[in-house]
Amino acid sequence: MSEAFGFRLLARDGVARRGEVTMPRGTIRTPAFMPVGTAGTVKAMYLDQVRALGADVILGNTYHLMLRPGAERVARLGGLHTFAGWPHPILTDSGGFQVMSLAALRKLDETGVTFRSHVDGTPHVLTPERSIEIQGLLDSDIQMQLDECVRLPGERGDIERAMELSVRWAERCKHAFGDQPGKAMFAIVQGGDHADLRERSARALVDLDLKGYAVGGLAVGEPQAVMLDMLDATCAHLPADKPRYLMGVGTPEDILLSVGRGIDMFDCVMPTRAGRHGVAYTRRGRINLRNARHAEDTRPLDAESDCPAARDYSRAYLHHLVRSKEALGGMVLTWNNLAYYQNLMAGIRAAIEAGRYADHVEAVRAEWARGDLPPVDGR
Amino acid sequence: MSEAFGFRLLARDGVARRGEVTMPRGTIRTPAFMPVGTAGTVKAMYLDQVRALGADVILGNTYHLMLRPGAERVARLGGLHTFAGWPHPILTDSGGFQVMSLAALRKLDETGVTFRSHVDGTPHVLTPERSIEIQGLLDSDIQMQLDECVRLPGERGDIERAMELSVRWAERCKHAFGDQPGKAMFAIVQGGDHADLRERSARALVDLDLKGYAVGGLAVGEPQAVMLDMLDATCAHLPADKPRYLMGVGTPEDILLSVGRGIDMFDCVMPTRAGRHGVAYTRRGRINLRNARHAEDTRPLDAESDCPAARDYSRAYLHHLVRSKEALGGMVLTWNNLAYYQNLMAGIRAAIEAGRYADHVEAVRAEWARGDLPPVDGR
Repeated sequence: MSEAFGFRLLARDGVARRGEVTMPRGTIRTPAFMPVGTAGTVKAMYLDQVRALGADVILGNTYHLMLRPGAERVARLGGLHTFAGWPHPILTDSGGFQVMSLAALRKLDETGVTFRSHVDGTPHVLTPERSIEIQGLLDSDIQMQLDECVRLPGERGDIERAMELSVRWAERCKHAFGDQPGKAMFAIVQGGDHADLRERSARALVDLDLKGYAVGGLAVGEPQAVMLDMLDATCAHLPADKPRYLMGVGTPEDILLSVGRGIDMFDCVMPTRAGRHGVAYTRRGRINLRNARHAEDTRPLDAESDCPAARDYSRAYLHHLVRSKEALGGMVLTWNNLAYYQNLMAGIRAAIEAGRYADHVEAVRAEWARGDLPPVDGR
Repeated sequence: MSEAFGFRLLARDGVARRGEVTMPRGTIRTPAFMPVGTAGTVKAMYLDQVRALGADVILGNTYHLMLRPGAERVARLGGLHTFAGWPHPILTDSGGFQVMSLAALRKLDETGVTFRSHVDGTPHVLTPERSIEIQGLLDSDIQMQLDECVRLPGERGDIERAMELSVRWAERCKHAFGDQPGKAMFAIVQGGDHADLRERSARALVDLDLKGYAVGGLAVGEPQAVMLDMLDATCAHLPADKPRYLMGVGTPEDILLSVGRGIDMFDCVMPTRAGRHGVAYTRRGRINLRNARHAEDTRPLDAESDCPAARDYSRAYLHHLVRSKEALGGMVLTWNNLAYYQNLMAGIRAAIEAGRYADHVEAVRAEWARGDLPPVDGR
């Protein structure tokens, strides 16, 4: 454990980086995938399962937690780690992204954003300062600046205005965050699908000398190739000695390729959300357990997995659970999917250490390309 | 493990019995509580958790399983034990009770009952012979006769007719079940709230010389005192060397008092259903976690419990999970409740062995009477 928040690079392979983010509550092995614990719980999982899968950090959503149970209440209860029973690092988002996607009657101006709760209609104000205050009340280890994220495709003028606003908000968040050696506040590079705006955003934020940098506003509708180009345009201007977090990304392939562009940290609802909707991630691609082909298939999702969820439940049973809307279906598939994502990250880290990242990417993609096991009995 | 199905009494304390039901798949320590695994899953639980709590047997619902995934399909998949991943004893009901409470367009006559599935509207026929056939396809260790259960209060004429029909169906089920040394078919005593009908039913079924006897048609609307009177009227006429199963019962107090009337086995959806609805069973009574008094209570449900669900989650967190409809709320509360029920049974078994059952009943009731912990901060 480290007293001060820090980052060190342990190995590089091309642009891919293997590192460690250290802080008093623990160490995050990078590249890292952060399971999403929206409202203080990684849906349908016991947190000790999440930990056992190798997660070093989970993400909490400021928007959900500020509405319910409320940031001041979480603070009175000892902070989010105590409240949820996760003594390890927690990263919180700023709340801004979900205000814009979930809240009602939202209105954004220079000062911040006002909105009404989607839970009970109560009015709220989220400014850069209040976002940091809330994340402090939650006792979050890695806090994110409030930003404005524009969906793609979007007008260049809108994207540029939102990027410039986000830079000003980054400065206000930095001021509000102040000097907290054991914690970090990350800024968020915006600029949509314009390389020049990405560069301007990155340079302006690097001038603020923060402890880490996120890339926001990607995986919001643009093709994967555009996303990867924007990562190239961004990472080239970020300091090598600070962690880089690609927000809300993504598919296993997105992660594999983004690590190859120099990204260190990821979060995404895909493994947890897909698990609740009957979809399993495996070494041989995605499997939809609702499909009738699984109804009498006694094979597990992946007999060679070290995760009981992948190894000890037949596809026929999972098909039945999913079709019957039984809770255990979502429990097992979420478990399987988070295991898959954590194993993916472990494989990525080992490959970078061994200096064979490009080969590893090809090998992982080749297994996906094989597709799922052939049906039993020719069905 | 025993090759043949059997029952032996290990101790008696007054009318209360401590015993063992043995069969090739394992031993059921009685008095026993059987968690309800409706559709091949104890809702919101991993079956290894259920086992670790001390459950020797779970119950499967023939009605649900015959509709989805279907008995023939379960058989092709290796039976219910293999399908669900529970290699220990399983008891299945006959399906009759749930046909009458859940199915559409049901019609009952001497031959059996016809109905339409509540899942997809398909027509089905359930006769005594088909019920036993289905339970055999599921590979159930303890199978129940098809019976007709009349809700209370009811007309004596209806109750008598249903009781007599149930006796005739018991004989047909016995014939259909045949000679299966490692398994058992239990008959079900009916007769509503009439002691003389209960006695007639019991005597007629005992004449069939079955391996176990259930008491049905109780906890269906009558006062607890009536239920206990009916147990006295029934158990007096059941052989001492056969297990006695009180179906669908009940509250912890129902169980405590019914053991005192000579009952050996119980099943009930209460602990699992209550857990999904925000209610916890504890040594000091039921707690509704939705209640605002728990919102900032950092104490666990029961600090002295040996179950993590009772010990490692604050009431404030559980309140939040329940209010937010998060899956983990139902997972933790179901786990807590099944732990409570299994601990209740372990305490009952130990008290009978020690010959202090009456004192034990008073001690358990005294703890319930203390009520929940006083609120924190006078709230």
